[in-house]
Amino acid sequence: MTDASSPTEPFYGFDICRTPLMTDLYELNMYEAYLEAGMTAVASFEFFVRTLPPCRNFLLAAGLEQVVRYLETARFDARELAWLRESGRFPESTVERLAAWRFTGDVDAVPEGTVVFANEPILRVTAPLPVAQFLETRIINLLHFQTLIASKAVRMVLAAAGRTLVDFGLRRAHGAEAGLLAARAAYIAGFAGTATVPAEPVFGIPVFGTMAHSFVQAHEREEDAFLDFARARPQAVVFLIDTYDTEAAARKVVALAPRLAAEGIRIHGVRLDSGDLAEHARRVRRILDEGGLGEVRILASGGIDEHLIARHVAEGVPIDGYGIGTSLTTSNDWASLDCAYKLVEYDGRPRFKRSEGKATLPGRKQVYRRLEEGRMVEDVIALDGETMAGEPLLRPVMRGGRRVAVLPSLEEVRAHAARELARLPDFLRRPEPARDAYPVRLSPGLAALVAELEEEHAAAGRGARR
Amino acid sequence: MTDASSPTEPFYGFDICRTPLMTDLYELNMYEAYLEAGMTAVASFEFFVRTLPPCRNFLLAAGLEQVVRYLETARFDARELAWLRESGRFPESTVERLAAWRFTGDVDAVPEGTVVFANEPILRVTAPLPVAQFLETRIINLLHFQTLIASKAVRMVLAAAGRTLVDFGLRRAHGAEAGLLAARAAYIAGFAGTATVPAEPVFGIPVFGTMAHSFVQAHEREEDAFLDFARARPQAVVFLIDTYDTEAAARKVVALAPRLAAEGIRIHGVRLDSGDLAEHARRVRRILDEGGLGEVRILASGGIDEHLIARHVAEGVPIDGYGIGTSLTTSNDWASLDCAYKLVEYDGRPRFKRSEGKATLPGRKQVYRRLEEGRMVEDVIALDGETMAGEPLLRPVMRGGRRVAVLPSLEEVRAHAARELARLPDFLRRPEPARDAYPVRLSPGLAALVAELEEEHAAAGRGARR
Repeated sequence: MTDASSPTEPFYGFDICRTPLMTDLYELNMYEAYLEAGMTAVASFEFFVRTLPPCRNFLLAAGLEQVVRYLETARFDARELAWLRESGRFPESTVERLAAWRFTGDVDAVPEGTVVFANEPILRVTAPLPVAQFLETRIINLLHFQTLIASKAVRMVLAAAGRTLVDFGLRRAHGAEAGLLAARAAYIAGFAGTATVPAEPVFGIPVFGTMAHSFVQAHEREEDAFLDFARARPQAVVFLIDTYDTEAAARKVVALAPRLAAEGIRIHGVRLDSGDLAEHARRVRRILDEGGLGEVRILASGGIDEHLIARHVAEGVPIDGYGIGTSLTTSNDWASLDCAYKLVEYDGRPRFKRSEGKATLPGRKQVYRRLEEGRMVEDVIALDGETMAGEPLLRPVMRGGRRVAVLPSLEEVRAHAARELARLPDFLRRPEPARDAYPVRLSPGLAALVAELEEEHAAAGRGARR
Repeated sequence: MTDASSPTEPFYGFDICRTPLMTDLYELNMYEAYLEAGMTAVASFEFFVRTLPPCRNFLLAAGLEQVVRYLETARFDARELAWLRESGRFPESTVERLAAWRFTGDVDAVPEGTVVFANEPILRVTAPLPVAQFLETRIINLLHFQTLIASKAVRMVLAAAGRTLVDFGLRRAHGAEAGLLAARAAYIAGFAGTATVPAEPVFGIPVFGTMAHSFVQAHEREEDAFLDFARARPQAVVFLIDTYDTEAAARKVVALAPRLAAEGIRIHGVRLDSGDLAEHARRVRRILDEGGLGEVRILASGGIDEHLIARHVAEGVPIDGYGIGTSLTTSNDWASLDCAYKLVEYDGRPRFKRSEGKATLPGRKQVYRRLEEGRMVEDVIALDGETMAGEPLLRPVMRGGRRVAVLPSLEEVRAHAARELARLPDFLRRPEPARDAYPVRLSPGLAALVAELEEEHAAAGRGARR
């Protein structure tokens, strides 16, 4: 049933966020090849980041909720199956198998909002090989992006030392899903909220919004724009004051305040969006204070990143909050993480890869984290089943395709991230690259397995070359 | 009507690619404020890029098709209206107005695949002010991303000098929509296709795919993996040969070739994904040629960008094609463009903004491009209506909410982009920053309008300070 006000046709014909077709063609090719070779035993794949970018001292894991939802809802619908048939790439038996397919595997993962480092498994999928393989692309796509953004956002949160941060980045985010998920990742990291409207109905994230320059430009006089806005939107009056002359506009705000107060409207803040923000903020603070508007907050936006925030905080610049766009939602200093989803076990046997510069750790793994006096001091990557000192980071999430427990709410994830930051060693907290890496070592069991497989492989190689 | 195999509930509850709620809250606040102030006269907004990144000599416009589709289909559905009501932010009269809303405005734009430069309007929306304003966020979101990626991809196309390029970037693209639209933007720029499966059903883009390392790792012997794959997927046999030892794997390919040939299977190519690609390619080429496999192509992936491609081409490295992921779909050297969607006219009067470093050009504009001997030599940004020498770049796209003509097909857009590249001056074609910028000047009419408004504003400012 459809009616004009409820279009059901997705924008792209397919629900591109849900469809299991949102994958690389090689996943489908391998699916078919595994079936034909009868290789359907259970496999484990692990998602991890190979190396940290030079400008990241740690990462904040995020995106698990969307992966779980994807695994719970991923199925091929009639339209997708029709396309698979029409494409002529797969035999009817495979299309029928895909038609009946539901995810029935296991997932273990590090909780969202947890600090993680290079080579530490963040998520493990255990399922029949063709399926665990097939899921690779979208699992990476979902985990990579939110982890990337949460790891960028948390740097700004640390730099801001309590000042309010709001995500303004939808317009330059890479598409709609990036905008929505960036809002979520930033909120996990400690942002107060976002300007992206659907983040409220979809995730319950607080949304904020003021006015654009065009609102001022559309009016003949700047003060008329302020008056019109304040009267229409008295809930949270923030005036954008840099359209023409920032200090002149601040004086107009002072002049308007008594008139608005008489109408019962309180001016909440002013926003600066261009020029030397620190210098303008100091001058505007003086104008507002001298005008009796000491309560009016100064917000800044436009080209903000963690380094600028840290400098402002160090210099005592009177900016109370920041709207952060591009540098947050595109992670503009490093727009991707060197991550992978790799086969670590098949049919009960550990697997690894030796490609130059891309070697992987074999076997199903667990990460143990040791704390001293409430601060993280060392991680050990161990084999699953090996027991080490410290707290294990990976937890069971799905068994047989179902959640083993309710995942934490977004508020709980955010609180967990805040606790993680409190446990972070001081040398990782600053925006500058840390001189030393956080210590992550391999357990004796994992080190022995690596050595054993290296030796086995070398022997096989010598055999092959004879 | 729903059935188990056709879920109709969108992944995020809302179709985030279609919903007009995919915007910043300030757009809704301004919508309300404009209504309350009675400011509903016609406005024109223009989308443009303020400055080119230092690592881009020109841009390739892309994303218009999605903007038009968005404008044609954007309406608030029952669920979205319910949320607007529940949010308590807007009076019922506004919600009802939004319920009835359809885009009925005009759009003028530069055709997709056209070369553009800083400050040149790429798209203009003309509609009642509250509506033209409201559309800002998603229009920027769609035009920015595809223009960003097409402008990155075209650099690779120029560097590759005819070698085959395929998009491998879905996994590290920023979400599903970014992956899908990056495939489209890269195809416009001249890529042969993509690994992203839905790009075929949604856009008709050729999709390519081979095998992953895990496929090799899952087998006990590398040669068994090759055999299984070739038999299951004989259409386009490409072996990934760097899982353990690249040259040893190349020799295995030579050894397997006669056996596969006897089964009627031709080996199409081998893929390198790690180490020194140039060095491996030379050695592998020698092994394949000596083994009688001169026809087998060498493909490379992993950390590819336009600079590496240019170096390979200059050095005659025997790589026939590249799979390009992260650097393409995240535009990793510059992950955003400094773009804006600015009010240029309201109620028949030109508007502008003077913010430091962010001043805008007033009035509805047109761009004229002059060619000499088939090459671009100069652009002039003029007022709409001013007639200049050269070819006008903006064309009517929508009038009264409807397309004025069928937009070119994706194949036509791609052909147009190829013609544009042929017209590009030599000094802009190399991956290095050009010493000189391409000449873009203002027409006499536009320059006079800027001067007039500056003068008017200065007079008003003096007045305001009295």
